[in-house]
Amino acid sequence: MNNRLKEDNTASGWFGREPERRVDVFDKLDPEKGVTRPTGSSANMKIRAYAVEKMKEAGLDVRVDAVGNIFGRKNGVQQNVGAVMCGSHLDSVVNGGQFDGALGVFSAIEAVRRLEDEGYKNTRPIEIVVFTGEEGSAFGMTLLGSTALIGKMSYEEAAARRDQEGRTLKEALEYMGYKGDFVMDLDTVAYFVELHIEQGPVLFNKKVPVGIVENIAGIAWIYATINGEGNHAGTTPMKMRRDALTAAADIIKFVEKRANEMVDRLGSATVGTVGKLNVYPNGTNIIPGRVELGIDIRDVVSENMESLKQEVSAALKDLERKYGVSVDISLQPTHFPEPLAHEVIDVIEQSAGEVNIRSMRMNSGAGHDSQNIAKKVKTGMIFVPSVGGISHAPMEWTEWDDVENGVQVLTRTIKRLTQIREDGASMTLR
Amino acid sequence: MNNRLKEDNTASGWFGREPERRVDVFDKLDPEKGVTRPTGSSANMKIRAYAVEKMKEAGLDVRVDAVGNIFGRKNGVQQNVGAVMCGSHLDSVVNGGQFDGALGVFSAIEAVRRLEDEGYKNTRPIEIVVFTGEEGSAFGMTLLGSTALIGKMSYEEAAARRDQEGRTLKEALEYMGYKGDFVMDLDTVAYFVELHIEQGPVLFNKKVPVGIVENIAGIAWIYATINGEGNHAGTTPMKMRRDALTAAADIIKFVEKRANEMVDRLGSATVGTVGKLNVYPNGTNIIPGRVELGIDIRDVVSENMESLKQEVSAALKDLERKYGVSVDISLQPTHFPEPLAHEVIDVIEQSAGEVNIRSMRMNSGAGHDSQNIAKKVKTGMIFVPSVGGISHAPMEWTEWDDVENGVQVLTRTIKRLTQIREDGASMTLR
Repeated sequence: MNNRLKEDNTASGWFGREPERRVDVFDKLDPEKGVTRPTGSSANMKIRAYAVEKMKEAGLDVRVDAVGNIFGRKNGVQQNVGAVMCGSHLDSVVNGGQFDGALGVFSAIEAVRRLEDEGYKNTRPIEIVVFTGEEGSAFGMTLLGSTALIGKMSYEEAAARRDQEGRTLKEALEYMGYKGDFVMDLDTVAYFVELHIEQGPVLFNKKVPVGIVENIAGIAWIYATINGEGNHAGTTPMKMRRDALTAAADIIKFVEKRANEMVDRLGSATVGTVGKLNVYPNGTNIIPGRVELGIDIRDVVSENMESLKQEVSAALKDLERKYGVSVDISLQPTHFPEPLAHEVIDVIEQSAGEVNIRSMRMNSGAGHDSQNIAKKVKTGMIFVPSVGGISHAPMEWTEWDDVENGVQVLTRTIKRLTQIREDGASMTLR
Repeated sequence: MNNRLKEDNTASGWFGREPERRVDVFDKLDPEKGVTRPTGSSANMKIRAYAVEKMKEAGLDVRVDAVGNIFGRKNGVQQNVGAVMCGSHLDSVVNGGQFDGALGVFSAIEAVRRLEDEGYKNTRPIEIVVFTGEEGSAFGMTLLGSTALIGKMSYEEAAARRDQEGRTLKEALEYMGYKGDFVMDLDTVAYFVELHIEQGPVLFNKKVPVGIVENIAGIAWIYATINGEGNHAGTTPMKMRRDALTAAADIIKFVEKRANEMVDRLGSATVGTVGKLNVYPNGTNIIPGRVELGIDIRDVVSENMESLKQEVSAALKDLERKYGVSVDISLQPTHFPEPLAHEVIDVIEQSAGEVNIRSMRMNSGAGHDSQNIAKKVKTGMIFVPSVGGISHAPMEWTEWDDVENGVQVLTRTIKRLTQIREDGASMTLR
């Protein structure tokens, strides 16, 4: 294991490893509360400052754009060729884990440091990137920084978004000192690679240290409200009820059954979840009059996702006939599945083989900034195992040996990508 | 329709009818908020004061016991015979309706006034009663006053119970001016009759103005917590889940299905309801890790209630095997079904016939103070229709014509009961 990385690791957290800095940059990780670093928070400001410091120590030229995305450039031997971009995000969910996002940023910096230590001269430029607001824990949308970066939303619109306290992103960035005016032109970027924790149980269960993402799943959310008739549970005979919760139970079972059938029949990566359910008035002795549902449907194949979405919507409407309830359905904007670039997938797979680390191809059920960047740039993702599949929780954990495996594959991948010639041929790696 | 009752009725509420008093005693009924009169509140104090004033106007001798139950006595021609007790409660649920409980108290007072107007001399004494804390909206248990009155709980224990603000019942009664030292001996009471709104849809749907209660249903509550594994809805494959909500959906369907089957097979009055359900962490994109359920099971036949309770408990435990979850079950103290007295039921039925008002026998799915008093005293209940079956809600309503029908049947019933001789024979009614 690389000594510097090892020094950087203690039980209380990875990044603030140098002991004299740890207390300044990161509070001791609270096993109950985990980390809470929404964009615009002082915790977010601290980890940004720490990352920028590490980038500068690694000799990178740091610039910030109008939505707070941070870029750290290491020039290549050749200047007029597309760069290799690498990074992730530093914001977190409320009471999240320390690895989600941050691991990808600091692994990228570590990779550059290792290449520097080797004396490797990168042909293509390298751009380390920190995306603003991936989690959506502050400004009401996920993938905020990368959405602006690919031009799906203007910088102005993004900067004007408000958080729960009514503060604009612009104001939040000014507070943190990360409101810049740099404009990154993605036409100058040839490849993007993001290392991330899997956030699921597949690698952990299969004991495979590295996953290579082929597709990022699409996400369709359905919000539904079932309106029945709230009534006294004792005085309303069974045959005179319009119970919104017994109707909702049909949908919970339907979503589970159909997703499972699609997996069985198609071998698909379909998942369907009723994650949110509120009952009104929610008293043991009152027949539920209203139930609100939040349904999450994902697949890496658009047709599967759309088909399950249609089936669930139809089943929801069918409750009206079956239960005498009325159902309001609100289909949320769909994120379509994003396939990643075969060229980058192949390079990651080859790199893993070269450093003797086992890998497997897989899909990502979670959304990532990579799915945005993939629309403009050839993109790949490296997954490392999440212990027990746990993420978005204080218990989120990745073994340090797996972090090291991931950094080794990432370092080799960056090295290979920076060597690819404009005609697509790979230059010989030293 | 009796003129005094008619004067007492306006669209904004029944009891505070004399206009000059209405504003003092009752605020204008808010269609959004209804009435909120928990024991110890200023609203509860106001309605108690109004009832006591009406009792005194009717010539009753008013006494208060140690838990705030109010008694208003009208002596009989004979002194050493058991009294006819009649009344209900004045407290309400939060945001409840104006009829639940209060109708029974003021109808009893109205009945005594009508008998007085007739010049009727009651053979047995009449006791109007106002029970404290029937709804359990303040002191953490239902039927508080009647539970102390029948000696199922000591007056000291009842008076020491605390409300949400930490105030004892004794302190709450002292605040309202209703902490007394009268001790009612139920051995001096021969009959009890309570008029109440049905709180269900049966009379309203069948267009029958008066219901005569044969049994008050027993109530069994099951609290259950299903512990699964909270996880990312996108990254956790269907086959690797332990979803607490899909397990809960099984129970919701089971309770509905089995209760319906019992009704179909046995012709029983069984009802089963999952009224309360909380999901944790309750995010659309998170597999539910924990679900808390509150299940309400009722029947007028003990065996049916116990059988369904056992089946639901077994089905809950069975989820452990089926879904890999763990289930904690907490069986709450059971209220057993209470049959009411044939003798009183017959008198009510006869009385309804005599005043030409259609009636039907039925069961009560809701709990009432009558189920306590029935353990010591021959008890009957008169139901009047609830529009749409709605109760425990601001929209609770009973048509004034139905109120009048109920008061007529109640008046005649009290008259008959006060005439019954000690050997059980009925004296001739004038």
